[in-house]
Amino acid sequence: MTAPDPLVELRDRLREFAADRDWRQFHAPKNLAMALSVEVAELMEHFQWLSAEASRQLPSSEHDKVREELADVLLYLVRLADELGVDLAAAARDKLAINALKYPVDKARGSSRKSTDL
Amino acid sequence: MTAPDPLVELRDRLREFAADRDWRQFHAPKNLAMALSVEVAELMEHFQWLSAEASRQLPSSEHDKVREELADVLLYLVRLADELGVDLAAAARDKLAINALKYPVDKARGSSRKSTDL
Amino acid sequence: MTAPDPLVELRDRLREFAADRDWRQFHAPKNLAMALSVEVAELMEHFQWLSAEASRQLPSSEHDKVREELADVLLYLVRLADELGVDLAAAARDKLAINALKYPVDKARGSSRKSTDL
Amino acid sequence: MTAPDPLVELRDRLREFAADRDWRQFHAPKNLAMALSVEVAELMEHFQWLSAEASRQLPSSEHDKVREELADVLLYLVRLADELGVDLAAAARDKLAINALKYPVDKARGSSRKSTDL
Repeated sequence: MTAPDPLVELRDRLREFAADRDWRQFHAPKNLAMALSVEVAELMEHFQWLSAEASRQLPSSEHDKVREELADVLLYLVRLADELGVDLAAAARDKLAINALKYPVDKARGSSRKSTDL
Repeated sequence: MTAPDPLVELRDRLREFAADRDWRQFHAPKNLAMALSVEVAELMEHFQWLSAEASRQLPSSEHDKVREELADVLLYLVRLADELGVDLAAAARDKLAINALKYPVDKARGSSRKSTDL
Repeated sequence: MTAPDPLVELRDRLREFAADRDWRQFHAPKNLAMALSVEVAELMEHFQWLSAEASRQLPSSEHDKVREELADVLLYLVRLADELGVDLAAAARDKLAINALKYPVDKARGSSRKSTDL
Repeated sequence: MTAPDPLVELRDRLREFAADRDWRQFHAPKNLAMALSVEVAELMEHFQWLSAEASRQLPSSEHDKVREELADVLLYLVRLADELGVDLAAAARDKLAINALKYPVDKARGSSRKSTDL
């Protein structure tokens, strides 16, 4: 027996969760993209007044809350991808290949510039 | 042989991608959360002037772009979770269990209200 | 006596508000931009599950909350512009002139396309 | 002759701008809130990899771009408030009064905590 692919598992469980509650009517991609953005803001709120250094060393109670916000972001992302018929893992692998071409190691090393400015 | 868990695979590939380019110095959680938010906005931009109905039926060229934006969001989310030492799949499963308690089927059916307003 | 320019008035009052509380140390533009983004998300949350039509006709209790979120967005925007030494009104007038060139009436009428796609 | 109130001036000019282009059909508050969020992300993108200190000292070319993004945020905010029938200056003054109560000087001095945690 193999471990399930978590993106497939979450997709299926969220699809059922929405269907059970008759929520598909609200789950237009436009609306889910907004909800995703709101969740990311809730995540970001934990970091807004921290220094970059402090954001690497969250106290444990704060870390727990951030972990839950990360989960919310993934859940909406998976739900949105499902409504759009997108295979998230395949899309991410394709994008990684593009990024490897856009950011060659020798040009991108140590630089935070956009690929178009390298 | 089992298929690899894509979240683990992406985490490892992104970790190496960042290390190869000496990007860990930029990848404080605070900064990655901002980058994640920017990617979600790029995704959302595709939907801003569309009706909810139109967002369910994107033309194919638009769908391709949205697929790439979804990938960007997942890549930053995975990178951020890795810097924070969070297991995204476990966090999402934990949150699903919480949501099942917060949104019981009989109370939540057909409603877009927050759990605190049910 | 003339009515005060509200953007100047708010700028001055917020500057004093921050100074009184020794908050200038937190008010780096990077941090204020994050806080602004979080406030916009709180605003957007009120609209995420509504149809476009329903968003034009908010019930009065919801309208009051949205009004307060709009205020929060303006307050952070004014504070951020002040820290950056930007005259918001002048910047907006300059941008309106640019937009008039980018979106000529005859080409832009009835279209939600970006200027680069007109 | 008094200087015009810039928020009123911008409101009127944007209202006319939208009417001339038959854009009111797109300007449901839901859509404008999304567009506002996208503009804030474009602003935030300039800061994502910078230290807080560096964000206080932008080079001049970067400062010009940030100024233009601030303008975009104000323009969408004014347009959105107009569609909702909200007087932005009055709403901001009301909110400042609330904030003065929520963040008394003696409790809030030097702290970035939320009012509920003071």
